[in-house]
Amino acid sequence: MSHAPGAVCSPAVLILMSHQATRDEVDNVIRHVREHGFEPIELPGTDRLAIGVLGSNPGLIRDVVAALPGVVDAVPVSKPYKQVGREWHPAPTVVEAAGVRIGAGAGFAVAAGPCAVESRDQLLETARSVRAAGASLLRGGAFKPRTSPYSFRGLGPAALDLLGEARAETGLPVVTEVLSPGDVEQVAAVADILQIGTRNAQNFALLEAVGGSGKPVLLKRGLSNTVEEWLLSAEHVVSQGNSQVILCERGIRTFETATRNTLDLSAVPLIHSLSHLPILVDPSHATGHRQLVPSMALAAVAAGADGLLVEVHPNPDEALSDGAQSLTLDQFRSLMEDVRHLIAALGRA
Amino acid sequence: MSHAPGAVCSPAVLILMSHQATRDEVDNVIRHVREHGFEPIELPGTDRLAIGVLGSNPGLIRDVVAALPGVVDAVPVSKPYKQVGREWHPAPTVVEAAGVRIGAGAGFAVAAGPCAVESRDQLLETARSVRAAGASLLRGGAFKPRTSPYSFRGLGPAALDLLGEARAETGLPVVTEVLSPGDVEQVAAVADILQIGTRNAQNFALLEAVGGSGKPVLLKRGLSNTVEEWLLSAEHVVSQGNSQVILCERGIRTFETATRNTLDLSAVPLIHSLSHLPILVDPSHATGHRQLVPSMALAAVAAGADGLLVEVHPNPDEALSDGAQSLTLDQFRSLMEDVRHLIAALGRA
Amino acid sequence: MSHAPGAVCSPAVLILMSHQATRDEVDNVIRHVREHGFEPIELPGTDRLAIGVLGSNPGLIRDVVAALPGVVDAVPVSKPYKQVGREWHPAPTVVEAAGVRIGAGAGFAVAAGPCAVESRDQLLETARSVRAAGASLLRGGAFKPRTSPYSFRGLGPAALDLLGEARAETGLPVVTEVLSPGDVEQVAAVADILQIGTRNAQNFALLEAVGGSGKPVLLKRGLSNTVEEWLLSAEHVVSQGNSQVILCERGIRTFETATRNTLDLSAVPLIHSLSHLPILVDPSHATGHRQLVPSMALAAVAAGADGLLVEVHPNPDEALSDGAQSLTLDQFRSLMEDVRHLIAALGRA
Amino acid sequence: MSHAPGAVCSPAVLILMSHQATRDEVDNVIRHVREHGFEPIELPGTDRLAIGVLGSNPGLIRDVVAALPGVVDAVPVSKPYKQVGREWHPAPTVVEAAGVRIGAGAGFAVAAGPCAVESRDQLLETARSVRAAGASLLRGGAFKPRTSPYSFRGLGPAALDLLGEARAETGLPVVTEVLSPGDVEQVAAVADILQIGTRNAQNFALLEAVGGSGKPVLLKRGLSNTVEEWLLSAEHVVSQGNSQVILCERGIRTFETATRNTLDLSAVPLIHSLSHLPILVDPSHATGHRQLVPSMALAAVAAGADGLLVEVHPNPDEALSDGAQSLTLDQFRSLMEDVRHLIAALGRA
Repeated sequence: MSHAPGAVCSPAVLILMSHQATRDEVDNVIRHVREHGFEPIELPGTDRLAIGVLGSNPGLIRDVVAALPGVVDAVPVSKPYKQVGREWHPAPTVVEAAGVRIGAGAGFAVAAGPCAVESRDQLLETARSVRAAGASLLRGGAFKPRTSPYSFRGLGPAALDLLGEARAETGLPVVTEVLSPGDVEQVAAVADILQIGTRNAQNFALLEAVGGSGKPVLLKRGLSNTVEEWLLSAEHVVSQGNSQVILCERGIRTFETATRNTLDLSAVPLIHSLSHLPILVDPSHATGHRQLVPSMALAAVAAGADGLLVEVHPNPDEALSDGAQSLTLDQFRSLMEDVRHLIAALGRA
Repeated sequence: MSHAPGAVCSPAVLILMSHQATRDEVDNVIRHVREHGFEPIELPGTDRLAIGVLGSNPGLIRDVVAALPGVVDAVPVSKPYKQVGREWHPAPTVVEAAGVRIGAGAGFAVAAGPCAVESRDQLLETARSVRAAGASLLRGGAFKPRTSPYSFRGLGPAALDLLGEARAETGLPVVTEVLSPGDVEQVAAVADILQIGTRNAQNFALLEAVGGSGKPVLLKRGLSNTVEEWLLSAEHVVSQGNSQVILCERGIRTFETATRNTLDLSAVPLIHSLSHLPILVDPSHATGHRQLVPSMALAAVAAGADGLLVEVHPNPDEALSDGAQSLTLDQFRSLMEDVRHLIAALGRA
Repeated sequence: MSHAPGAVCSPAVLILMSHQATRDEVDNVIRHVREHGFEPIELPGTDRLAIGVLGSNPGLIRDVVAALPGVVDAVPVSKPYKQVGREWHPAPTVVEAAGVRIGAGAGFAVAAGPCAVESRDQLLETARSVRAAGASLLRGGAFKPRTSPYSFRGLGPAALDLLGEARAETGLPVVTEVLSPGDVEQVAAVADILQIGTRNAQNFALLEAVGGSGKPVLLKRGLSNTVEEWLLSAEHVVSQGNSQVILCERGIRTFETATRNTLDLSAVPLIHSLSHLPILVDPSHATGHRQLVPSMALAAVAAGADGLLVEVHPNPDEALSDGAQSLTLDQFRSLMEDVRHLIAALGRA
Repeated sequence: MSHAPGAVCSPAVLILMSHQATRDEVDNVIRHVREHGFEPIELPGTDRLAIGVLGSNPGLIRDVVAALPGVVDAVPVSKPYKQVGREWHPAPTVVEAAGVRIGAGAGFAVAAGPCAVESRDQLLETARSVRAAGASLLRGGAFKPRTSPYSFRGLGPAALDLLGEARAETGLPVVTEVLSPGDVEQVAAVADILQIGTRNAQNFALLEAVGGSGKPVLLKRGLSNTVEEWLLSAEHVVSQGNSQVILCERGIRTFETATRNTLDLSAVPLIHSLSHLPILVDPSHATGHRQLVPSMALAAVAAGADGLLVEVHPNPDEALSDGAQSLTLDQFRSLMEDVRHLIAALGRA
């Protein structure tokens, strides 16, 4: 990367003083700002004073001054992330995983497979089928985070072996989730891309562990994370020296209960404007209903996503998890035809 | 419509009794259900009893029993809307407004124009330009609901006259918002479609006033309305004998602040599965940022929307409201080319 | 009030320019700001420029510049409301309705009664009982907004007559909801306080109609309104010359479904810091469950609320609406004892 | 506990068939249910069929049938948690940590201290002062989860040593956060209560690690977790054989930005009705503003909380994190007087 990680954006924070603030209160704010190593600039207004603070850590300055006497508000006015931001790194990042390239100009990437690896037959049949249909990556869960401790938790290490076998046979690189820093080494021995799930999107110990693994990382958006927080989670990974991060929008939590989550497709062009990282869309978890998946997959293509993550199962009615949102092999094949058609119509690779 | 409005779906509610409920408590629940005119069915389980209630008003039954002694929960198990639901009315509704048809099989409808009518020149220039670009309807606000009483509120009746003139010249039917039951007659004298804005989505007096107007109604989704509540608002209009309702998804309120609202595109296929009414998408209000509008407009097409509502202004930088989310005339022309291309690629009309 | 409605807070907006912005782009922004009648101030930073704009309409300036070339962001830095804000009007407002005073230092106000007026017996029995228990106001719905058109809508004018009779007998001033500008005169002829419900919190035509009525207004918070938007709705009323506004927190819409809404009690001290208007709390609609109402009522007292709005019914199991969240007469009497005890312990009036 | 962990609640799920479902479709659903080891019961209605399923895993059944042909919906009708639920374990749990008891009937517990341990002086001064003011537990972060990788992350092991020293001197048991399964042993060597933060509320690997530690666990509610999901996270801990779980409400994420989070105080009586576990309230993180903390602390007492978690700092303006929401030592002393006064007035211990 051509920019220093600490490159400043300024002013970082605008501190608004009350119209009743005394000179002593203003001086106290200025002193605090300087003590934390930043440079304040007084900005007189017609009936109140503002103080701009140049520097690289808006959150810190805001914490420092927000409750000082005479302060009305402290407004951050620069982005808190740096290495993942597009402003200082305009060229898109292309992530490469076992020969498959993901990102702008690199072809549309589709990761498909079962929610959970359940058996050798289930996985291999799915892998062969999605490969034939045009998928470029195989997804499948070995370790499953489950809201209830009584739900199926995945086959664990045995599933990793099966994923390795499926890759050997089909040539598809493998995306699979890792749940704990202690599992990273074991999972990374098989996975080509390490997936961080939505419930671990702010599990910073795990983010740093995968950041240190040298493997590309697929970072799902946290259930209630803003785009800014999501990019900061990516920054946790990148700050470990691992720039190979793929973002994945999978729906956010809202008041709407008719869908499992609310797919925030606007995040696709928004991420493209804010960051150089590639972004995939997961219409399966976003909607939770198989019949909504194809429409949302096509919408994601039209919105400019760099790829998709889709749950596919040879017999969704028998699936041990997420059956209601999994496509059948035939439905996936049909979807891929529509996706290819749409991409061609849009003039993309 | 071929079904009676009161057609029952059953069981409407499932009442769960505590495993400690006494026979007297069960009998009391049964008595209450019967007194409200419904028929309870006892459903014995291994260690508790459930009571199913057949009938047409789940909300009422739930209210009646939810706090009775021995009741653990009362779960509605049928849809509370009837006339707008697809289950009993499978064929899609096509709304017709001054010769323009909106709905499945009727061509893709695009309503375009300024957020607010600001002047004769601004409106006529926009109307001519969007017509040339392929818009089928002209949108423009005469009466504007504004969060702050100090913001521009629209030109009012003078704007209605200008909208009438623009229609006369371009032939485009006019969509414009009505804010109050007392204004319906005046607005309906000019408008071909009456728009109900997001803040009035549960203003039932207004919904019934437009329901009685005989004009087609464009019903925006309320800022925090579920799809079910939105369909119930549509039911308020339809229950006045006006079946000409067009739904419009325009973003919901969530925790995310990077976009003005969160566009819930999954609502498009979901509405198509639940209701026979057509649905448009408004990417302008949903995103609040001009540069996100084209991506979301194309995504809406791919998701299966029946049309778009887009803010267009000859000079957005000078707009009195919503300039940041308005397309220029050139941007709209370019978007329409992409929309036509996409519709053709998708094999739609 | 001692301040002019247009009193400026400055700077109103801070415009952040890109670090790549050209001098022409900066000049263009400055020109736009001046053309809209405001005065820009250039604020140079180490690697980018910011422009402060003094003035009274942050929303307008933001709209004007947000999409101009070279602009990264435009951050509002002053409150958009004026007359309801405490900064320029520090003394608390005390609202007076038929002899009952509501606000800081005026005693704790409790409005109690049925969700809907259902019959003469139901209303009079409730009114007598809540008066004996210590309520200072009688609440009861004559016109009910209902999500479904098939739910009970209230007795209408007949209920207004009964409310008048109950007031005559008990001396309790009446709070009742008005749904439409056309109904204001009729409802105001009986009501001592006009209630604006949550679904109409941004029905600006209605807000202005009650603003012009001369009657005190109880303004419920909109289902998804921020505190700032709520205060702006109050500003709509006050800007009509009616300063007698009581705010009422009644729960907001969130992802949580175990309660009907999420009671945002932090809004109580927050409103007290931002505004001089009194604030009541409605634990009935907030929770939706009778057994949660007393705890939340006491919590509201401890949080500093100026009063309560509580649903009470002689026989909640038979109520035509909201029975599950209504207290019995006995439960209300018991709650009032606890409330009085708590207020005394807190050293309040 | 007197009940078996697998105790069934029935019917677990009600499956609604379409009114057009064929007999074959019904039989197919019944077959699937039986194949997963559960017993279906047919519940005929007037124009459609429902199928009740008795059993202990509603989520699984729902996944199995939701997308089968002819199925309209599958509604869970029993609670998915067991060991933490009150229905089968009515007596309240009292957690004991180094001699301090927390829960119903055990006195009101207040954990106070700095957000982060910053220095020996800062911690010891705070510990002595909060002990003198009446706190029963000392809180302080050694390992801090931070949204940005560039924020202060805590002193780590050095802070653990200081916490041990503060406990030795003051006798206050220590509550401190653990971020990763690999750190549990190290943190548990010092901590009397292991805290799980909001971002790790669904980090199941960590929940199970603390479940196996033998130490009491303070489980904060996840930023966007429903009460049901929160109880399921507690169930993850308890299912490891560790019944010593204390819940902590600390605000949820909503659309409101005026406070850091939205404190959901209704969760206090709700948790008391659903679960036997004790619940504390953290008004510091919930509001994010020091001036709102005392009101919300008192509201939590009135709502029935079993205790508080409060951030206190000898000099909040110099704090390295969360200064704006930390009370000064004097403010905390004053709050404790008010809390004691209120508890006495409420007739609690």
